[in-house]
Amino acid sequence: MAEAHGARGTSAPGREAPFVLKDFPHSLPISTRWADVDVYGHVNNVVYYSYFDTVVNEYLIARGVLDPQTSPIIGLVVETRCTYFRSLTFPAPVMAALRVAKLGSSSVRYDIALFQGDEEAVAQGHFVHVYVDRASQRPVPIPDPVRAVLQALVRTPA
Amino acid sequence: MAEAHGARGTSAPGREAPFVLKDFPHSLPISTRWADVDVYGHVNNVVYYSYFDTVVNEYLIARGVLDPQTSPIIGLVVETRCTYFRSLTFPAPVMAALRVAKLGSSSVRYDIALFQGDEEAVAQGHFVHVYVDRASQRPVPIPDPVRAVLQALVRTPA
Amino acid sequence: MAEAHGARGTSAPGREAPFVLKDFPHSLPISTRWADVDVYGHVNNVVYYSYFDTVVNEYLIARGVLDPQTSPIIGLVVETRCTYFRSLTFPAPVMAALRVAKLGSSSVRYDIALFQGDEEAVAQGHFVHVYVDRASQRPVPIPDPVRAVLQALVRTPA
Amino acid sequence: MAEAHGARGTSAPGREAPFVLKDFPHSLPISTRWADVDVYGHVNNVVYYSYFDTVVNEYLIARGVLDPQTSPIIGLVVETRCTYFRSLTFPAPVMAALRVAKLGSSSVRYDIALFQGDEEAVAQGHFVHVYVDRASQRPVPIPDPVRAVLQALVRTPA
Repeated sequence: MAEAHGARGTSAPGREAPFVLKDFPHSLPISTRWADVDVYGHVNNVVYYSYFDTVVNEYLIARGVLDPQTSPIIGLVVETRCTYFRSLTFPAPVMAALRVAKLGSSSVRYDIALFQGDEEAVAQGHFVHVYVDRASQRPVPIPDPVRAVLQALVRTPA
Repeated sequence: MAEAHGARGTSAPGREAPFVLKDFPHSLPISTRWADVDVYGHVNNVVYYSYFDTVVNEYLIARGVLDPQTSPIIGLVVETRCTYFRSLTFPAPVMAALRVAKLGSSSVRYDIALFQGDEEAVAQGHFVHVYVDRASQRPVPIPDPVRAVLQALVRTPA
Repeated sequence: MAEAHGARGTSAPGREAPFVLKDFPHSLPISTRWADVDVYGHVNNVVYYSYFDTVVNEYLIARGVLDPQTSPIIGLVVETRCTYFRSLTFPAPVMAALRVAKLGSSSVRYDIALFQGDEEAVAQGHFVHVYVDRASQRPVPIPDPVRAVLQALVRTPA
Repeated sequence: MAEAHGARGTSAPGREAPFVLKDFPHSLPISTRWADVDVYGHVNNVVYYSYFDTVVNEYLIARGVLDPQTSPIIGLVVETRCTYFRSLTFPAPVMAALRVAKLGSSSVRYDIALFQGDEEAVAQGHFVHVYVDRASQRPVPIPDPVRAVLQALVRTPA
């Protein structure tokens, strides 16, 4: 197992286990890009978060509960985290998988996992949005239509 | 026509005409990303070039004539250009189309056009690679296997 | 000279000459970033345009003639181009130099050159903004305060 | 306090306190870029990690213990995390501050904080490198010259 994961998978005995794709209710294929790759020949660690960002916002826009230019209530990112087990490479696409780990009154915590040709996550992490009034930037309750589409993604971590 | 193109299409009487998708022998769908979008709500002008870069290198890697980490002869970019007719938006994908406009002894000039839900290009431009020895960075003839896959993309501009 | 420029400088006898820093009325140091570098160990060609974009908009914002979130009239990019003579590397900063090559009624064409530790440009190109009404996206005359700060950058190419 | 921090600072009673600049032994000013800004008018959450990446690698390269193209032992990123208190804006630069929170036999955990015109962090997080043999990608002890420059950054969190 450690062997299969390469160095990134062997750093610590107590390290978290990779998520598996079937435990996620939603996923989105995302193209990798030449410019994603760094001098070591792998997708740069920063870019993983652009996949996180994309799977979350695509879900909200596609379901009609977010218009980035006009919505009066929007989600601001307050925390993100990623654990890297293996490397992603170009040009194969990445599958970004999404579920809601915790749905609060004004915030939502997503679990996100990235896959590339395997059922075990290459990397995984979380992403927390706090909903705010766009003008005042003050926290507000998650609007009902947003809550409904988030509710559909709620999974209790195994 | 100008109306259809919005402001970016009306800047000059003598402006070049948009390319059409059917005139390209190769194309690749590329996901847009949330972070591609700038404060004006459209994909930032810089990002168009990441699509250019991606369609070129994906073509070469997929056909087995480029291994970015080991190929002893590689293409260096010496010139790029893009004309923007309209805006690209997230989250719809972009279709990046590729052809070879000029195939020289050590350089290749690609035409690239970007489409998003229409047969007329949203933006288009060119991208010139000069082949060099990886170690010395000096120009060398395009290797035969590379030349063969480039030859397949040669189209004479209409 | 060709030697000094490496492969990117030797691609064609008729290639344009590098600009020199002293011919530019404005310049801005810009940090390079680890993620700018691609698998070949140099700043990726796409990233050069993020330096272009930055030197233009920083100039306009710093002089008080652009507020990206509220200005009712904004510049849309309709054309960009870059010629690459040599490679940029991380972590040294880039000096981005700016002048106005052509100031029209509703559009402005900037010349931009990038330097890294030398008086001769590593790369150079142009960047064309068309001014539009933000709501309608239709071309409008460049507002007088913008025109005044652009006028200060006008240089006739040597 | 909440007022000073805006919405991102008020999400939870138990939220961690912002770091202060004087508690960091090393810092690096990094330019913001136009393309860093997203549709909400602030630096996109992904980009914060490109500042993290940059302050770490610049430190190692500037001290002569990393050559990204040739070093036989390199650091691979296995975990990153960021907490966002407030928003960063363009065009002011960011000050990225660095210290070592934990120095293990083959891994190092950095604390990183980002500042923009204030002594309190706008955002902060951590970044973990595992040192590996570049060819085999297997973990190895941190080389002595690297360890020496890391030791100089060790601070016990207050």
